Amino acid sequence: MTDFPLIEFHPVRDRNKAATLVQQVIDAVTRAIDTQALRPGMALPSVRDFARAHDVSTFTVAAAYARLVAAGRLVARPGAGYRVAPRSSTQAGSAGPGTDALPHAWSPPTLGAEWLLSDVFADHSIPVKSGCGWLPGEWLNEDGLHLGLRHVARVPGARIAGYGHPYGYAPLRAAIAEHMGAIGLPVQAEQVLLTQGVTHGLDLAIRTLLRAGDTVIVERPCYANLLPLLRLAGLRVVSVERAAAGLDCHALEQLAALHRPRALFVNPVLQNPTGATLTMANACQVLRVAEQHDMWIIEDDISRELAVGVAPMLAALDGARRVVYLSGYSKVVSPSVRVGYVVAHADVVRDMARTKMAVGLTSPEILERVVHQALHEGRYQAHVARVRERLALAHGKVAQALTDLGMTLHSEPRAGLFLWARLPQGWQGGANALASRALNDGIWLAPGSYFDADQEDIPWLRLNVAYSDDASLWRFLRQATA
Amino acid sequence: MTDFPLIEFHPVRDRNKAATLVQQVIDAVTRAIDTQALRPGMALPSVRDFARAHDVSTFTVAAAYARLVAAGRLVARPGAGYRVAPRSSTQAGSAGPGTDALPHAWSPPTLGAEWLLSDVFADHSIPVKSGCGWLPGEWLNEDGLHLGLRHVARVPGARIAGYGHPYGYAPLRAAIAEHMGAIGLPVQAEQVLLTQGVTHGLDLAIRTLLRAGDTVIVERPCYANLLPLLRLAGLRVVSVERAAAGLDCHALEQLAALHRPRALFVNPVLQNPTGATLTMANACQVLRVAEQHDMWIIEDDISRELAVGVAPMLAALDGARRVVYLSGYSKVVSPSVRVGYVVAHADVVRDMARTKMAVGLTSPEILERVVHQALHEGRYQAHVARVRERLALAHGKVAQALTDLGMTLHSEPRAGLFLWARLPQGWQGGANALASRALNDGIWLAPGSYFDADQEDIPWLRLNVAYSDDASLWRFLRQATA
Repeated sequence: MTDFPLIEFHPVRDRNKAATLVQQVIDAVTRAIDTQALRPGMALPSVRDFARAHDVSTFTVAAAYARLVAAGRLVARPGAGYRVAPRSSTQAGSAGPGTDALPHAWSPPTLGAEWLLSDVFADHSIPVKSGCGWLPGEWLNEDGLHLGLRHVARVPGARIAGYGHPYGYAPLRAAIAEHMGAIGLPVQAEQVLLTQGVTHGLDLAIRTLLRAGDTVIVERPCYANLLPLLRLAGLRVVSVERAAAGLDCHALEQLAALHRPRALFVNPVLQNPTGATLTMANACQVLRVAEQHDMWIIEDDISRELAVGVAPMLAALDGARRVVYLSGYSKVVSPSVRVGYVVAHADVVRDMARTKMAVGLTSPEILERVVHQALHEGRYQAHVARVRERLALAHGKVAQALTDLGMTLHSEPRAGLFLWARLPQGWQGGANALASRALNDGIWLAPGSYFDADQEDIPWLRLNVAYSDDASLWRFLRQATA
Repeated sequence: MTDFPLIEFHPVRDRNKAATLVQQVIDAVTRAIDTQALRPGMALPSVRDFARAHDVSTFTVAAAYARLVAAGRLVARPGAGYRVAPRSSTQAGSAGPGTDALPHAWSPPTLGAEWLLSDVFADHSIPVKSGCGWLPGEWLNEDGLHLGLRHVARVPGARIAGYGHPYGYAPLRAAIAEHMGAIGLPVQAEQVLLTQGVTHGLDLAIRTLLRAGDTVIVERPCYANLLPLLRLAGLRVVSVERAAAGLDCHALEQLAALHRPRALFVNPVLQNPTGATLTMANACQVLRVAEQHDMWIIEDDISRELAVGVAPMLAALDGARRVVYLSGYSKVVSPSVRVGYVVAHADVVRDMARTKMAVGLTSPEILERVVHQALHEGRYQAHVARVRERLALAHGKVAQALTDLGMTLHSEPRAGLFLWARLPQGWQGGANALASRALNDGIWLAPGSYFDADQEDIPWLRLNVAYSDDASLWRFLRQATA
C-alpha cells in the first residue's frame, strides 16, 4: 500500500460478487482522478504491482485498466505502463482558467462508436483478443520477415536511402503482375501500384474516384474500418445484404436505380466479418448490375491467399476495367510491414499514384523489399499452407463451441480468420452491451454494430478464430448467454 | 541497328546543332510509337544499348527518354528500363472500339502542373537533379540505416510481426518528447503521434482540423506538395508573402480579417523553397495575428536539424495549443524510412490518431524501430554535423555561381538544402520555359510556379545545393540566360 498512497482501495471480497472486483478497482482509480489525488499525466502503478499490493489478480487489474482506457480516463502506453489521461475538453468539470483551452470549439471528425476500437487496438495488454482482425504474431511469417530484414540490411545504403518510385518497388510490382496473371487477371506492371496496406488503398481509391456527396454501396455487414473512411470523405452510404452465397442482387439493383451510386465496395472472399465467399454466379451477377448502373467496384481481396480452392475475383471477370482490386500482405506475411497493392486500369493507377504522392509521397521501399524477399524465399508456400491448416482446425473448434451455445453461424467457411455468429434467439441485451461486459472481464469482442453502416446494435458477433481458443472467453459467453 | 529494328533513327550530326540530337531521338521514338512500330507496353532498348548502337552519348539518350517520360509517351521503371506508355484516354487518336474504355468519363483530381514532378520523381535516371527536394543517398545516414536494420532483424519475430500502437513506437515517441523538451517545448509522450513523414502529417492535420470550403493561408512561395493536398481537401487557398525576415504580418492581418481563414501553414526554418528562417520577432508577430483571428497554425519544421544556431519555433512560443508541429527524419536519416511526427495538444493528437487509423491503420513499427536505433547510436550527431558542413560548403559555391549569372537571391542561409534565385532582370522567357528546356538536356530545374498557390509563372528557381555541383547545369544556365 505504501507504494501507491494516491489510490485508496479497500476491496470488498465477496465470492458472490467476484465480478465486481474489477468495478471496485475502476471506482478507486476514478475517485483518485476526480479528487485530483492522481493528476493528468501521472503514472499508475503497474498491473502487477497494483495486483500484488492489494492481493487481487493481475487479470482483475488489467481488465479494470482496459476499461478505464476505453472510457478515456487512462492512457495506455504498451511497454511503458498507464498514465492518467490528459484533461480533455470532452470531459466534464475540467479545464482551469483557459490554460488548457483549445483555440476552436471544434468537433472531431464524426467517427462511429467503432472507434472505441482504436483504444482497444492500442491496448495490447488485453488478455483475450477475440474481437481483433489480425493473426497472432507467432502465426505470421516471422522467418520470412527476419530473412527479408537481414537481406535488406545487406543492400548498399545509397540504394535504399533515397525515395522509392511513386508506384513502389519495381521487382515487387513485377512479381505481383505475374501472380495476378497466374490467378486469372493478366496485367502489366504499370497496372500495379504499391500502397501501405489495403486501408491505404481504399483511401486512395476513394479520394481519386469519388467526390463528397457521392453515394456508395457497402455490404451489410462490411469491413468496420471502411465506414469511418467513407464518412471522412463525406460520402453517402447505403447497404446491401450479404448472404452466405453473396450479395442480394435484387436489392442491389433497386438501390442502384434509386440512389445512382458511384461505387460498390465488396470483399468477395472470406469476407470480413462474415467469413463468406461469393459464389461464381453471384460474382457475375454483381458485375452485371455494376455495368448496367455504371458503378465502380472497389474489390477488397485481402484474404484470398487463405482461401482453399477456387474463389471468384471480380477484377478478373471484368478485366480490371471498372473494378479496382486491392490486396496486400497483412494477413499472411505481417500487418507490421504495411505493404499492400492496387491493380486496376493503367489510367486509374496513374491517377491513384498522383493521389498517393500528394497525400504522403512514396511508400517505404525498404519494407517493399522485405516483402519481396519474404515471398521469394523457399519456405513461403509452406508457411501459407501451415497457416491455412491451423485456421481450419480453429474454425472447427470455434464453430462447434458457438453452436453449442445456441448461436447461429452466417457461414461455415473453415478458412480465413472470421466467424459471424448470431446471438441465441432468447438473448435480449444487445451485442453492444455484451461486448461492454466482456471488456470488464478483459475480453475483447467485436459486436455487430462495428460492421453496420448505420451502427445498429444487431445481435451478431465477429469472432477471430485464431484468438478464440481461450477458456475464459467460453466461460464468459456461457454465463452471459445462459 | 539490327537490335532495334523498330526505331528508325538516322541522326543528323551538326556540331552547331548539337542540342538537337536529343530532339532527334525524341522524334524517332515518337514516330515509332505513332506508326505503331512500338506498341503500348513494349520495352525500349536500354539507354546504353541505344547510345552504343547509334554512336550517340548516353547523356543524349537519357535526356530524350526523360522528356518522353515527362510527356507521357514512355514509362520509366527504375532498374528495369523503359517501356512505351499504356494507351491513355488523355492521348489523342487512341482507344479501339471500347476495349480499353473506362466506365466513367471521370476527371482526375485537379492536381496542378507541378504534378509533372511525379514523373520526374519516378525517373531516377535523369542526369542532373537540381530541382529535387532531397539529399543524395550517400549524404544521408547510411550507416545508421544499416545498423538500425540489422538491429531490428535481431528482434524476436512475434514482437515485430503484429500491428504497432496507433500512436507509433513508444520508445521513439518518448525520445521525441524528450528532444522537444530540450529544444524548448516540454511535452508528454501522449502529445506525440508518429506519421509516415511530414506530408502524411499535413494530410492528417488537414483532414482532422479542416473541412471542405474552409479558407487557409499559405506562404508565397510555399512547399510544393502542400498545394495538391489542400486542393484535394477542397480548401480555399490564399497566400501571404514570405520575405527574408519572415511573413508580411500586415498583409497577414488583412487577409485574416477579409477571409476568416481557419489555418495558416508555415515552414519557419530553412524554408522550402526560399531557404529563409523567420526572425524571433516575426515568429511572435505571426503567433499574435493567429491568436487574434483564431487560426490554427500548422508548422512544418522538417529542416530544423540542419539549421545552425537558434531558430524560432512557433509551437514552443505557443505551448502547442493552436500550433500543430510537424517534423521527421527525411532530411537527415533518410526519406525512404517515411518516419515523421506530430506534436500538438493531447486532444488534437488523439483526434489525429483516429484519422490516422481510419485512413491507413498504424504506421510501420519496424521502420520506427530502425529510426530509433539510428538516432541513438553514437555517430548520429557526428553525421548531422558532417551534413551541415557539406551543405554550408555547397551553399557558398552555388550562391556565388548564381550571383555571377546575374541572379538575385531571396536569402543566403548557408544551411539547409535550398536557394531561391530570381532570374536576371532581362530574362523574358519565364521560369517554366527555362525548366522545359533544361529537361531536354537532362536537367531537372524547379521553376517558381511549383511553389505558387496560383501556379503563376514567377521568374524564380529553387536550387537544391546538394545536387547543383555539376558543370553541365552551369553551362546550361549560362547559355540560357546569356
